[in-house]
Amino acid sequence: MTEMNGAQALIRTLVDCGVDTCFANPGTSEMHFVAALDDVPEMRGVLALFEGVATGAADGYARMAERPAATLLHLGPGLGNGLANLHNARKARVPIVNIVGDHATYHAQYDAQLQSDIATVARNVSSWIKTVARPEDTGEAAADAVTRAAGPPGEVATLICPADACWLGGGVVAAPRTAATRAKVDDEVIEGIAKQLRSGEQSTLFLGGSAFRERALAAAGRIAAATGAVLLGETFSARVERGAGIQPIPKLAYFAEMAAQQLSGFRHLVLVDAKSPVSFFAYPDKPSDLVASGCEVHTLAAGGDDAVAALEALAEAVDAPETCPTLAPAGRPDRPTGDLTPDTIGQALGALLPENAIVSDESTTSGLSLGHHTAGCPPHDWLSLTGGAIGQGLPVGTGAAVACPDRKVLCLQADGSALYTIQALWTQAREGLDVTTVLFNNRSYAILNIELGRVGAKAGGPKAREMLDLSRPDMDFVSIAQGFGVQASRATTAEEFTTHLERALAEPGPALVEAMISGIG
Amino acid sequence: MTEMNGAQALIRTLVDCGVDTCFANPGTSEMHFVAALDDVPEMRGVLALFEGVATGAADGYARMAERPAATLLHLGPGLGNGLANLHNARKARVPIVNIVGDHATYHAQYDAQLQSDIATVARNVSSWIKTVARPEDTGEAAADAVTRAAGPPGEVATLICPADACWLGGGVVAAPRTAATRAKVDDEVIEGIAKQLRSGEQSTLFLGGSAFRERALAAAGRIAAATGAVLLGETFSARVERGAGIQPIPKLAYFAEMAAQQLSGFRHLVLVDAKSPVSFFAYPDKPSDLVASGCEVHTLAAGGDDAVAALEALAEAVDAPETCPTLAPAGRPDRPTGDLTPDTIGQALGALLPENAIVSDESTTSGLSLGHHTAGCPPHDWLSLTGGAIGQGLPVGTGAAVACPDRKVLCLQADGSALYTIQALWTQAREGLDVTTVLFNNRSYAILNIELGRVGAKAGGPKAREMLDLSRPDMDFVSIAQGFGVQASRATTAEEFTTHLERALAEPGPALVEAMISGIG
Repeated sequence: MTEMNGAQALIRTLVDCGVDTCFANPGTSEMHFVAALDDVPEMRGVLALFEGVATGAADGYARMAERPAATLLHLGPGLGNGLANLHNARKARVPIVNIVGDHATYHAQYDAQLQSDIATVARNVSSWIKTVARPEDTGEAAADAVTRAAGPPGEVATLICPADACWLGGGVVAAPRTAATRAKVDDEVIEGIAKQLRSGEQSTLFLGGSAFRERALAAAGRIAAATGAVLLGETFSARVERGAGIQPIPKLAYFAEMAAQQLSGFRHLVLVDAKSPVSFFAYPDKPSDLVASGCEVHTLAAGGDDAVAALEALAEAVDAPETCPTLAPAGRPDRPTGDLTPDTIGQALGALLPENAIVSDESTTSGLSLGHHTAGCPPHDWLSLTGGAIGQGLPVGTGAAVACPDRKVLCLQADGSALYTIQALWTQAREGLDVTTVLFNNRSYAILNIELGRVGAKAGGPKAREMLDLSRPDMDFVSIAQGFGVQASRATTAEEFTTHLERALAEPGPALVEAMISGIG
Repeated sequence: MTEMNGAQALIRTLVDCGVDTCFANPGTSEMHFVAALDDVPEMRGVLALFEGVATGAADGYARMAERPAATLLHLGPGLGNGLANLHNARKARVPIVNIVGDHATYHAQYDAQLQSDIATVARNVSSWIKTVARPEDTGEAAADAVTRAAGPPGEVATLICPADACWLGGGVVAAPRTAATRAKVDDEVIEGIAKQLRSGEQSTLFLGGSAFRERALAAAGRIAAATGAVLLGETFSARVERGAGIQPIPKLAYFAEMAAQQLSGFRHLVLVDAKSPVSFFAYPDKPSDLVASGCEVHTLAAGGDDAVAALEALAEAVDAPETCPTLAPAGRPDRPTGDLTPDTIGQALGALLPENAIVSDESTTSGLSLGHHTAGCPPHDWLSLTGGAIGQGLPVGTGAAVACPDRKVLCLQADGSALYTIQALWTQAREGLDVTTVLFNNRSYAILNIELGRVGAKAGGPKAREMLDLSRPDMDFVSIAQGFGVQASRATTAEEFTTHLERALAEPGPALVEAMISGIG
């Protein structure tokens, strides 16, 4: 290419900055970006049928690749459709670069049908938002977007590209910026926390974010062994390394009552790339702040800090043993028999989970025992719903599979949440991604049946119950998956489920196993 | 009820103000609203599996019921998921009252997972946004929201309800406000336009919004007969009354080149509840403003004006004939034979469209000949995509069917657009709605294949083509529909399609006919 247009310079810059995958749902205003995909061979375009799939896939991709993907979205409504999963990424500090097409600069004045205030929508999820007006600026803006997204901590950066800034000539490729690194935590902070941990007062190390990786966990385990500090992890996390040979990390419970129980009795709570724990929702007459009264909160490492180095320095400072003595032992449960329940599904997963698997977990109420049954499986990564906006599991699994083509991805997916972004199955089929989805079919928004009582609402009325019920008609996820081109089967007993899961895991490419949870409906 | 909580007062007020249908996709923060549905028997709750279905259904409902429905959405991400169809409603001036749940007022400070700036998201689609802090205020705010939504012109009003404002006692029901009426157009305006129309200079009456109803069309036809003015309608309209015995109205073409052709030669363009015509997108080296150079633009009636009365007064002022001489004659095409093409599908629709049917049209490129073939069918309503945000057709049809249980609804749905809100099929099944969906399966984003060339992008690259292609794998909409509980069949010839359509129309309840467009894929 001798003369580039703005779109070509944009894509070339993205690739030069390490962003070589774009999850796209384009429209007319993005056609020059789409055409330019063929001019930059290194950029891979992955089509999604719905923007929430594109943004969630970018999230899952970045969790595994440790660098951002781009999304390509169509004006304000396209960004709106992608907002829920961008919200989840923002809460998890996962880097994403959104490219949002807009009308040509001179067209905005006419208030055409698709005209709307895109930057306003972006503000909900992005602290970095830029609109480029000229083709000369797309490269610089793209390099800025990647840098800002990459952090640390990761961010959702949104670049709004009017169509004429893409189609006009004069595009200029920008050089990659020097990547920022995580900040070193001050020695005094580490010394202070070391002193407090050695005081003998009941303490907990509360881990999140980057502290869920193997090396950080090992250091945390050594600190716990030396000081008696209790390890606890944030309830929802972008990525946890776990399994045999890795320090396990108990998670704070979702339900505030149980979480408060777990946190009671501590005098010190030490945050390691984690937020001070609060309840997910507010409930009448229950506290939102879950820190026990009288407990002091300390910060070892904040979002942009080097939590791994801080934990290792802290381990040193408390004279921790050289190796972590509490690594998870290897071990799998037996293949389950009998009724198909969340518990027997967990057993089957524990029996079969492949080494190096990536688990995208949006099983919600059906998933409570999964962690227990898979604790001794070979090392694997566990990706959770991070911002509470459901519809994340299938897209995140899709993006993770694009990032890691040599690893098996397992989507553990509740029925209600699946239906926000079910179109992800088609992208899995098109790209031939090695994703096995376990669809927990309990025919209800089960979590809301629990929450209805917990918020103190009287739960008796038939109209209220109907709002939480997904039967009438029952959904047939085998049929839906096949409609999207993904092979699928249904299991109604533990034995059947184990056989179907084993087969799905053995074959490459996408598959779905619908697990009909017993005793319901 | 003696003592009400905020949610009960809110729902009671909505019902008292004429809003008795709520399209809901609730979460924990909306549980008190959900519980209160049983306390106000007149309020109907309709569950959607995805927020874009809820907002699009509210749009379709209001187009037919001529009063707003409510939506119930779950915080910022829920509103985000509903944004695209709210955008469409805003552009069409369709009234909607959004109820968006939020965390309890005191919980916001903790920045819990689902915390985000809801009002900012709402600003993209709502000019009226209110957050209520106390249960005493939910009733007043609801009455304000309904009044503001109802207009005229209609608006999207968004009421943000923190959970504690719903669950606390002390709710107060508010009285309905006096409804605003459409403003009478000044006599001088009418006289001025009458004078100009009688001048003999080439003029066109450009109709939109409320001018697409039978009475307005009849007046426009009389004016045309008396003055030689040419009638033309906005391309995209919320609701058009059409068919035998109604003045037909040719629409401005979507493609700007054709639209400019239609508008060339006029000296005067008279807006009747319409926006001055501009191209949908900008294209390199093509004008965005479609008004011919030298043409004067006049406004007979703006959005909030009484366009019907203005047209009738104008007819009077130009001494128009008492009755409209150009009403559409009755007539249907023969049942088609041969290949299944957009044209033969149009013939089948023309042959079979039931009297009083409601057509929700998101057929995009496949629908170009539908208007022609159905012009002489018995009177029916035609609802179009209004804001360019695709994924509107199935939800709008769903809402229209809720509003008009005694009328047959036909969704004419392109494949690509269907996939944004395909979950609407489940709501149709649950509610037993009398909706027949014709799914035009052409295995592509056909419009984008056209647009790629029109924007001047070179269309050759394989990666670009892949972004516009919906095969690999082909989607099976029969399977998907059945998975959502809707009976479905596939047609590959014109004869087959006509038979399937006839059967679907004859039976009550939802059905889908997948039309495999010939010569593709």
